[in-house]
Amino acid sequence: MASSVRPNRRADVARAPAAQARERAIAEELYVSEAPKSLLRSEDKLEGKLESMKEKFEVAIRDAQDAICKAVSDVDGTSFHEDSWTREDGGGGISRVLSEGNVWEKAGVNISVVYGSMPPEAYRAATGQSGGGAKPSEDAGRVPFFAAGISSVMHPHNPMAPTMHFNYRYFETQPWNGLPAQWWFGGGTDITPSYVFEEDMEHFHGTYKRVCDAHDPAYHPKFKKWCDDYFVIPHRKETRGLGGIFFDDQNDRAADEIFAFSKDCMGAVVDSYLPLVAKRKDAPFTKEQKEWQQIRRGRYVEFNLVYDRGTTFGLKTGGRIESILMSLPLTARWEYDHEPEPGSKEAELLKYTRAPRDWV
Amino acid sequence: MASSVRPNRRADVARAPAAQARERAIAEELYVSEAPKSLLRSEDKLEGKLESMKEKFEVAIRDAQDAICKAVSDVDGTSFHEDSWTREDGGGGISRVLSEGNVWEKAGVNISVVYGSMPPEAYRAATGQSGGGAKPSEDAGRVPFFAAGISSVMHPHNPMAPTMHFNYRYFETQPWNGLPAQWWFGGGTDITPSYVFEEDMEHFHGTYKRVCDAHDPAYHPKFKKWCDDYFVIPHRKETRGLGGIFFDDQNDRAADEIFAFSKDCMGAVVDSYLPLVAKRKDAPFTKEQKEWQQIRRGRYVEFNLVYDRGTTFGLKTGGRIESILMSLPLTARWEYDHEPEPGSKEAELLKYTRAPRDWV
Repeated sequence: MASSVRPNRRADVARAPAAQARERAIAEELYVSEAPKSLLRSEDKLEGKLESMKEKFEVAIRDAQDAICKAVSDVDGTSFHEDSWTREDGGGGISRVLSEGNVWEKAGVNISVVYGSMPPEAYRAATGQSGGGAKPSEDAGRVPFFAAGISSVMHPHNPMAPTMHFNYRYFETQPWNGLPAQWWFGGGTDITPSYVFEEDMEHFHGTYKRVCDAHDPAYHPKFKKWCDDYFVIPHRKETRGLGGIFFDDQNDRAADEIFAFSKDCMGAVVDSYLPLVAKRKDAPFTKEQKEWQQIRRGRYVEFNLVYDRGTTFGLKTGGRIESILMSLPLTARWEYDHEPEPGSKEAELLKYTRAPRDWV
Repeated sequence: MASSVRPNRRADVARAPAAQARERAIAEELYVSEAPKSLLRSEDKLEGKLESMKEKFEVAIRDAQDAICKAVSDVDGTSFHEDSWTREDGGGGISRVLSEGNVWEKAGVNISVVYGSMPPEAYRAATGQSGGGAKPSEDAGRVPFFAAGISSVMHPHNPMAPTMHFNYRYFETQPWNGLPAQWWFGGGTDITPSYVFEEDMEHFHGTYKRVCDAHDPAYHPKFKKWCDDYFVIPHRKETRGLGGIFFDDQNDRAADEIFAFSKDCMGAVVDSYLPLVAKRKDAPFTKEQKEWQQIRRGRYVEFNLVYDRGTTFGLKTGGRIESILMSLPLTARWEYDHEPEPGSKEAELLKYTRAPRDWV
């Protein structure tokens, strides 16, 4: 595990005051100095035999968190600060944040395990496509679920180096008031440059195309479009960035197959992204180019706070705020009525956010 | 009128491309080089006799825009950029923005006149309290309305000088599908410092207490509390700033009385706020104090994008995005898990955002 560059202020504080003050849909965080080997409830651990998907997925996201943080730390030359917590009724999380590093302004990789309950509409929305058309009655009550996920956003200092986001998650529900048990996977990795370098986009999208193609040739076209359609800022008529892959509610084949795909996607984060940052991190740039990056970060904030389902859901249900908002950049900018000069590099980026294109 | 410091790029562009691209609930902006004397529909102008509240309110907000922009411009030493537009079916607006001035990072004062339609729920919400309990049936369709308003946010550079926001508006509906005609006023002025100076807060709140008391001694306690209750960031359990006054749906006395009160509130903006900026604009500050201001601006962004009714309504209904998001600061910052040292000036501010207090 990466060691902390800041004192873990909360490690010895059983309950953070801010957490106490919030009314919560889920149990409070209990901060711990080191995350336990597993965040699962004891009845879900099955003696570490990795027979259940809950166990396998937790191991996968914790391994991915370790590997990705180590690779980022090596490039940056500084290390991640870690906060770990558990909850009384099971579950917990590990947030790792690198702040004001040498290369990244802010980079965070979170994992969390949640035992919660969702409204029937959420269950229906998630399972409607492929869940056998289960239609819970409105009075079935909230549906208990298990979720485990990894999420990350990395914002580099240099405006020529892109921001990257990824998120992989696994959901399970138990039989409940006549509703059948369900499970599904979701996730994606996407890239948000301020300046377009064709070869960088080819490398990033090409890496994920290869991961997709190894599992199903139908995946990449479908998940690339899903990504372009999801990361849209409607009031700007722009996408947040230049895409990648995105998928949700996946349960149309054996769970182990989708798990293997998800694991390969997590495994491709480092290879798809770090070479771009390594190449651009020391590129020269002007004050105006830095400001353009800051304006694009403002758009990132607009998407995340107004439209991102994970963020808006998290804000309303009492998740750990600092982990939810870790995705926001360290700094952002809003200039009144800013419009790049026609023909400029800035206008080129905007063009692709207004009409997504293929890169591979 | 303040002259433009930037070329009015849009003055000679009949339809802005971004506006064209958006699907709109209201007609597109038609940019004009100078705002017409009145933005009302011709049948509402009544030959300039100022007999209708529509006319009187438009004159009041345009006068207030002129007076406030002039006063701010005098303190800043730079002038406002202006964009004006009309809409085919009536109404329009004037946005004035001062960007990267000597004193303010960003200061904007918008006025707008809107002929639109609202869902019955919105009509009911606005008139339920005091509208004679009118209960439109669900199929009454969207209710046509007239609205005129002024809104403003000013973010100074110096972290010792507070941000200020105000907004005053007048609504009218016509008889529609059995619903009676209604009208109401709303508005408020509130202050958002990064550092607390008791005498500044006394001055600001005292000014608005005097304005309120001159109209109704019940106003200030009621509207001060309304402000504290409205500008809350629930996921932070903090208020956005340190309050002021806020009111909505006011139609419990003669329209001319509430109009006079609204006008006095607009008239108090300069006296309540500019002395604080004049006093603090050249105060010395450290890098850390500037960063604290930026973190508080991040909270401002969180409130405005996630919770502010005007902003979220505007984003979803196709209003002019640049005017709606003018309220965002030029720059903002999100540090992971930032918590000020106990006993610090930063902690003092937080204390009051977590438990609003009286200042006069």
